[in-house]
Amino acid sequence: MTALMKRELMSKQKLTIVKVGGKVVEEAASLADLLGRFSALDGLKVLVHGGGRSATAMAERLGIETQMVEGRRITDQSMLEVVTMVYGGLVNKNIVAQLQALGLNAIGLTGADLNYMQAVKRPVKTIDYGFVGDIVQVNVDELNLLLEKQVIPVLAPLSHDKQGSMLNVNADTIAAEAAVAFSEHFEVELVYCFEKSGVLEDADDDASVLSSLTYETFKGLQESGAIHAGMIPKLDNSFNAIKRGVSTVRITNIPGLQEGGTSLLAE
Amino acid sequence: MTALMKRELMSKQKLTIVKVGGKVVEEAASLADLLGRFSALDGLKVLVHGGGRSATAMAERLGIETQMVEGRRITDQSMLEVVTMVYGGLVNKNIVAQLQALGLNAIGLTGADLNYMQAVKRPVKTIDYGFVGDIVQVNVDELNLLLEKQVIPVLAPLSHDKQGSMLNVNADTIAAEAAVAFSEHFEVELVYCFEKSGVLEDADDDASVLSSLTYETFKGLQESGAIHAGMIPKLDNSFNAIKRGVSTVRITNIPGLQEGGTSLLAE
Repeated sequence: MTALMKRELMSKQKLTIVKVGGKVVEEAASLADLLGRFSALDGLKVLVHGGGRSATAMAERLGIETQMVEGRRITDQSMLEVVTMVYGGLVNKNIVAQLQALGLNAIGLTGADLNYMQAVKRPVKTIDYGFVGDIVQVNVDELNLLLEKQVIPVLAPLSHDKQGSMLNVNADTIAAEAAVAFSEHFEVELVYCFEKSGVLEDADDDASVLSSLTYETFKGLQESGAIHAGMIPKLDNSFNAIKRGVSTVRITNIPGLQEGGTSLLAE
Repeated sequence: MTALMKRELMSKQKLTIVKVGGKVVEEAASLADLLGRFSALDGLKVLVHGGGRSATAMAERLGIETQMVEGRRITDQSMLEVVTMVYGGLVNKNIVAQLQALGLNAIGLTGADLNYMQAVKRPVKTIDYGFVGDIVQVNVDELNLLLEKQVIPVLAPLSHDKQGSMLNVNADTIAAEAAVAFSEHFEVELVYCFEKSGVLEDADDDASVLSSLTYETFKGLQESGAIHAGMIPKLDNSFNAIKRGVSTVRITNIPGLQEGGTSLLAE
């Protein structure tokens, strides 16, 4: 019997990957609320965090100007130091310490740790993003081992180039790439947790949350202009993750963490 | 057969724990030199780093005053943020990325990660050190598992109180406490790597390095005032680690990493 056949015969264990960003992770009260709800989720889980506001605030205190292009941070050498210490140190370790206080055996990681996610510096086309990484390789062998021991990986939006430099990587991308890699061994639900309660049928009406969304419906709503522009790359990436093996993707806010928000459907 | 008898029957695998601090870790050229030599060491290994100069420099850039009492950093809330991001993020992740570039599968950790080292905030007697931790519990079960997979833990001088707060811990202490805990499963050599080439018989003569030192000789040299005052707590802690099960402690500089410097002897 091949390893593949063996895997298919055994039903996979469920793994929930929660990505949190925006204000959720950077205000003490909402972070505590989130971590409490996260700790109550059943089964194996992974937390992926952002921290852009904290990085911008720290950069400002250090007299370093923040430049964003199409929602991406231009990351020169001094900004790379800021994001390495803010994402990999300040935000990540405070989340780990708070999860430990809740009785969860968390471990904070960047892509450099265990070389679990390797990137290349984004090639310069029209814009030089500096030390921003595009993921080229994901290896979760050691993380699978830790998950089996009930350890909770807490992933910062950082990777490395395997040549000695850290790289700044978008947290949504870290979450999606990790989810795809974990799908080899687990039945993965990827949950994007942010300020809105889900995908809105009408961007101006917070009560118009869609409980589910197929790729076809998404494309229709995109064409009609109903879906908020900022949501489009998130949805494109999410449907891509589903195509690559992730079982379900859900988009929600903190109160909906357990089962609320919009579920994206394969078809 | 008891677990203890089983352990005694099996010869333990060797583990080298290298602690680096001071300028060694904070200047690019000496750090690269150190990491190259560290990567050439045979067998399983752990790296413990400091980063005090970087923390002081970052604090200064942020307008935060550094106060030291008897070589220990007074760590208020704003200084705790600085050391968490500098030790846990900037210094730690840059070392991890550079070790990965050298082909070593490093993982950067604080005591909060995997709850491998837990501390309590130091009680206030005459001095309030703030968020400085005294170690109360060490659990290296998951680290043993990672070491078996040839992973190299890189330990930052930070712990946590299991109540949600990070704590600032002296790197020598982290190294000694980790060494004692690993001694349960490994034959541990603890190497303190700093600027001097070893313990000097005459503090004013760099060529007077002792190749070995017993506790008795140390106490004699201390009484005669021959040993540099700054070296005394390091030696006291080292002999204490030997009493608690660490096989050997060696004190050296970078060129002596492989086998130079002063070896402390149990008797």
